[in-house]
Amino acid sequence: MYRKEIKVVDCTIRDGGLMNNWQFSDEFVKAVYDSLVEAGVDYMEIGYLSSESAFSRDVVGPWKFCDNKDLKRIVGENKTSLKLSAMADIGRIDLKDIPQAKDSLLDMIRVACYVHQVDKAIALAEHCMDKGYETTINLMAVSKVNETELDEALSDIAKSRVPVFYVVDSFGSLYSEHIEHLARKYRKALPGKEIGIHAHNNMQLAMGNTVTAIVENCNYLDATILGMGRGAGNCPLEILIAFLKNPKYRLLPILDVIQNHVAPLQKDIDWGYHIPYLITGAMNEHPRSAIAWMNSEEKHDLVKFMKSMHDYELLD
Amino acid sequence: MYRKEIKVVDCTIRDGGLMNNWQFSDEFVKAVYDSLVEAGVDYMEIGYLSSESAFSRDVVGPWKFCDNKDLKRIVGENKTSLKLSAMADIGRIDLKDIPQAKDSLLDMIRVACYVHQVDKAIALAEHCMDKGYETTINLMAVSKVNETELDEALSDIAKSRVPVFYVVDSFGSLYSEHIEHLARKYRKALPGKEIGIHAHNNMQLAMGNTVTAIVENCNYLDATILGMGRGAGNCPLEILIAFLKNPKYRLLPILDVIQNHVAPLQKDIDWGYHIPYLITGAMNEHPRSAIAWMNSEEKHDLVKFMKSMHDYELLD
Repeated sequence: MYRKEIKVVDCTIRDGGLMNNWQFSDEFVKAVYDSLVEAGVDYMEIGYLSSESAFSRDVVGPWKFCDNKDLKRIVGENKTSLKLSAMADIGRIDLKDIPQAKDSLLDMIRVACYVHQVDKAIALAEHCMDKGYETTINLMAVSKVNETELDEALSDIAKSRVPVFYVVDSFGSLYSEHIEHLARKYRKALPGKEIGIHAHNNMQLAMGNTVTAIVENCNYLDATILGMGRGAGNCPLEILIAFLKNPKYRLLPILDVIQNHVAPLQKDIDWGYHIPYLITGAMNEHPRSAIAWMNSEEKHDLVKFMKSMHDYELLD
Repeated sequence: MYRKEIKVVDCTIRDGGLMNNWQFSDEFVKAVYDSLVEAGVDYMEIGYLSSESAFSRDVVGPWKFCDNKDLKRIVGENKTSLKLSAMADIGRIDLKDIPQAKDSLLDMIRVACYVHQVDKAIALAEHCMDKGYETTINLMAVSKVNETELDEALSDIAKSRVPVFYVVDSFGSLYSEHIEHLARKYRKALPGKEIGIHAHNNMQLAMGNTVTAIVENCNYLDATILGMGRGAGNCPLEILIAFLKNPKYRLLPILDVIQNHVAPLQKDIDWGYHIPYLITGAMNEHPRSAIAWMNSEEKHDLVKFMKSMHDYELLD
């Protein structure tokens, strides 16, 4: 599937950090960075952009903030073709804490929002554009948004200067027909803008849904190494690269960082497909109850977990 | 996705047995059987139908043969709504060793064949029909078959009495567009017959491709519990049941057998998504080299495995 407009956005540290509070060793982050440079990946989302006042460094690692000195320790001046991205959550970053792009190693800031926050997201994203960054808006939990709200949000995005808008399957509850519907709807409502896809793997559909999005002309493709991410994880980068068969990407550097860094980490942090995530995904619910169950003594009692869900009979 | 024509075919013992030479305990097979009955699944493919002369019982367990006395030990007279199936490979079963259906606990015999064996498969399947069985033909490794050969095979199948023909992604190398193409082609060539789908998970597309097949009106859907099957395994039954939201199927009995029997077995038999299977799938190759690698001391050296593949540069 060769299409020169396609951009691959690796989110291993940013989304994976939701599983370990971004407490990665510098060695790990550097190994991921080096492999992405070697592999020809377009963007590395290395963490969140947050104000120091929003979180304590006693709890979260440096990639919850993406301070320039932390970035520099890993990437130097980043004289490579790999662009760096950070995600900003509404309300967690003061505008005054966002440096000018020329003073930052970050190239892109992606604004995550819920549907009721779209106005704030546009304001934040356009502020970042004015400071010299590339931007996207990633509308989370779209599986919970009704069509009227979505139409209104799309109308606001259409009038904004923000160039990229994402289909985000936060709960891993969407099937290929949903992705097709959303991608077509977004494209129709947003002429001249690019559409992105961020999938979760609760029903082992992250890669399949990403393929559907590619067929539907989405060009910003999120993935993570070995699918590392919250709960069931994301679209695995190594599968996406193998699929794209694009001469600008290489698979071997990704395999190298998997065998030496990412696979060993998975022994300690159990992201990926597990039945509790399937259940929240199939019920279109936030994975938090499944994550809590997976961290409990009862993690292997799948029947009990399902019965603990409100209205589980609707699924059984 | 409610459609009354849909039949779910569980292949846990048959395809999973490729990983342990069908050396399952009776307790395990009985637990799978009981859960499938409770879950309202349509068919249980409990093994292969082979002549005793074709394999040694010193090497393979009883489910390589599906002798009636072994079946009876597990299912009694099978006074349930669950039908029993066995797969027959060309050349591994003498016609004289196939009992009349009225003397067997088996309801269905599925004939697996390669494209050059389609004539033999039709003869074997029609022989089974004459003995009173339901039948299907499962054309393996279709990703290696060219369109001319496929057209010829479809023309022969169209003229046969065999009522069900399968899209089989033996190498786990097909994407949704391939599934769509094949399902449409099969349906067009085979008016009045049902189409089935048997997917493998090398690129984490087994469930996504099964959804595509459902959308394309395939009605025979193969799956296995926790995806147990050769190499990367199959479409997971629990995800398929959760997706179908069909009132005749239940999820809880499947979760019960997962937590008490299938998940514990996965600690010893490492089926499922692993990078060597991704590589053979993405290269459209038989998984045997990946299976051998996964059983070797070097299983974690992914870079070395990829470099051991002929023409690996085409993928990198």
